[in-house]
Amino acid sequence: MFSLIKDLDAEMAKRGVSGIVVLGATTLANPDLIYAVGGNLARGGIYFKRKGNNPLLLVSNVDVGTARKLGVVRRIETYTQWGFEELWTRSDEAMAHLISAVLRHEGVSGKVGLFGRSDLASGIYLANRLGALGVRIVGGQPPTILEAARETKDKREIDEIRNVGRKTAEIVSEIVNNLSKMKRIRGHFQIGKRRATIGLVKSMISTKIANKGLIAPEGTIFAIGPSSADPHNSGVNTDEIKEGRLIVFDIFPQAESGYWFDLTRTYVVGRAGPKAEHVFETVYEAQATSLDVLEAGLTGEEAMLAACDVIERAGYRTVRAVYEGKSKNVSSGFNHSLGHGVGLTIGERPNLSLLSKDPLRAGGVVTVEPGIYLPKYGGVRIEDTVQITRNGYEQLANVGKELEIA
Amino acid sequence: MFSLIKDLDAEMAKRGVSGIVVLGATTLANPDLIYAVGGNLARGGIYFKRKGNNPLLLVSNVDVGTARKLGVVRRIETYTQWGFEELWTRSDEAMAHLISAVLRHEGVSGKVGLFGRSDLASGIYLANRLGALGVRIVGGQPPTILEAARETKDKREIDEIRNVGRKTAEIVSEIVNNLSKMKRIRGHFQIGKRRATIGLVKSMISTKIANKGLIAPEGTIFAIGPSSADPHNSGVNTDEIKEGRLIVFDIFPQAESGYWFDLTRTYVVGRAGPKAEHVFETVYEAQATSLDVLEAGLTGEEAMLAACDVIERAGYRTVRAVYEGKSKNVSSGFNHSLGHGVGLTIGERPNLSLLSKDPLRAGGVVTVEPGIYLPKYGGVRIEDTVQITRNGYEQLANVGKELEIA
Repeated sequence: MFSLIKDLDAEMAKRGVSGIVVLGATTLANPDLIYAVGGNLARGGIYFKRKGNNPLLLVSNVDVGTARKLGVVRRIETYTQWGFEELWTRSDEAMAHLISAVLRHEGVSGKVGLFGRSDLASGIYLANRLGALGVRIVGGQPPTILEAARETKDKREIDEIRNVGRKTAEIVSEIVNNLSKMKRIRGHFQIGKRRATIGLVKSMISTKIANKGLIAPEGTIFAIGPSSADPHNSGVNTDEIKEGRLIVFDIFPQAESGYWFDLTRTYVVGRAGPKAEHVFETVYEAQATSLDVLEAGLTGEEAMLAACDVIERAGYRTVRAVYEGKSKNVSSGFNHSLGHGVGLTIGERPNLSLLSKDPLRAGGVVTVEPGIYLPKYGGVRIEDTVQITRNGYEQLANVGKELEIA
Repeated sequence: MFSLIKDLDAEMAKRGVSGIVVLGATTLANPDLIYAVGGNLARGGIYFKRKGNNPLLLVSNVDVGTARKLGVVRRIETYTQWGFEELWTRSDEAMAHLISAVLRHEGVSGKVGLFGRSDLASGIYLANRLGALGVRIVGGQPPTILEAARETKDKREIDEIRNVGRKTAEIVSEIVNNLSKMKRIRGHFQIGKRRATIGLVKSMISTKIANKGLIAPEGTIFAIGPSSADPHNSGVNTDEIKEGRLIVFDIFPQAESGYWFDLTRTYVVGRAGPKAEHVFETVYEAQATSLDVLEAGLTGEEAMLAACDVIERAGYRTVRAVYEGKSKNVSSGFNHSLGHGVGLTIGERPNLSLLSKDPLRAGGVVTVEPGIYLPKYGGVRIEDTVQITRNGYEQLANVGKELEIA
């Protein structure tokens, strides 16, 4: 956990902040708090860190054991010890008094950043009350201190992400295996004894996700034909699986640890026609080219431009035309960004987009996911989650990239 | 949706707020935003409401169709129409300018409440920027306007909750059915051909949850014997199911609509001894008694006291002793509150606790879940999710309450 404390100290120094407080009534959907405490706490907690010092974590009595087991924060105390047992009744007033008392005790006198996810109204009230108690609360534009610290992943985090990645890869292989064994009965594909619909495949995916101890709070995309041409369409349950049509399978599950994984493959059952093949080969090459240039120091924009070059050379449009003011929008072609950070969320720093001018940092974990979408026909997207290293990148899960399911 | 707008107007009037803004980059884990817009939006949105007026919702171009289908907000516009296409790059600065422009356009000049879940640092920054642009942002202590409005559920919400409740009840019945068919092989129970461990049952539950299109972001409790004596223990995977031991089965899944359900039953496989039976009958009676008095106008405290009376009369301790200062804590007995609101979260208003002095409102949905826990032995909890009505309550799902699985 030295890396976490070092990361936070560096970011605090950069912004002239002398203390940070990370809080939440739960760690659920609260990536900053999970990151600071190293895992899940049923009733959340309040994490304090003075620049240069070891952090202090306050939890309710019932969570002391769990907090110790997480092993990230060494100094653990309870609300009761601080005389604030009533905190569990959720009073922002009591919370403000407790936080200001702890900050005083820790010797924090300069600017203080408040982190963790909260209802805005209640967070703003808390900040105002703290201000009245003499605490100098500062807001922060993205990336906040915690977002910046979360950008680089340490070994424990990479292990967690690899673990989700391994299970995700298994699910994808199992589904491909099921599809390869489909039988055609009176013109319709069947999986086992049931009609092979998108709905059936999605329920098989859900079951596999559950069986591996993962969850998919944001769903799964399994879309065939025209629906696959819309990157936001998660698939139409009544659509049937048919030969020769593009299928985009984008799976993004989360483990109990809070870490996510994000993987997309595109398939065609049976033979792909020349149109599908050309789109697929272009996306494949675009991804390979971006991955090839990816390394610490490169900017997200440069990684994305590498993909745009390949795609435009093959005759498809990209979102670059919009950035250059040549077009209002890109209805056909590569119309989203190349990738995004993955960790305790699936939408964090760094971004691989045309607006990302900051150099990528070693230890960052990103998706690399070019796509080409042809309205009314279908789409192709190939996505891997990889770790950025000093001289390149490392795959965090391995799944073949064959287009055809024979 | 008239009830939603009426609820919001009433709460705004009560607090002297002339406008509210509900926002978020996603509706995931953002109950205020789901409530305001009526469902999920992939990229979230910004909801504006001036007191007495119909709301306005701003979304990205890709979410316009979805927002229309949700059918709750009639006035839907896009960031692009307002000249803020760049909002998708997530700039709190641009966000502040857009919000202040829309508020001006809507004629909101008084106090404005900001809602939705957000990173605190970034929310505080946004509030400060809005302040600098002349918007009078106010914070709010719990319950916020949105929390108070969310407390009463309209017909659409009740239908959603009933729907999750029906599926939850089916899962519980199916699991009980599986347990009733266990075979004993060489002294160990088996389900099918596998040893009947808590881990196996929990994976069966996960699969059923997934198959019904639900998720369980906070897990499931299935704990036997001593682990069931700790209300926070979700069960030990390696524990085996054995005869005569108390099993607490607490299941709290969420539907894609965002609505949750919360249900607990306690079982014993085979015959329950007199100790387990006495605890069970006491909890059963405590729940029946609380449900009996439950109706709009009662306070949460009164509902809880009804349960405490029954439990204390039967010779067990309750948390009332702590409130009356007679005890530091209750290690054995009824040591949590009677219930909590259920809706777009499983921890919202109203609370049924000894600190809840406000009268309950008709249309509120709450759990009623007394429990008795005997350390090193086991626990019993019986929980239903019900709707509070003017003269009583209504069950939102029906599952038998037999202790023994024969």
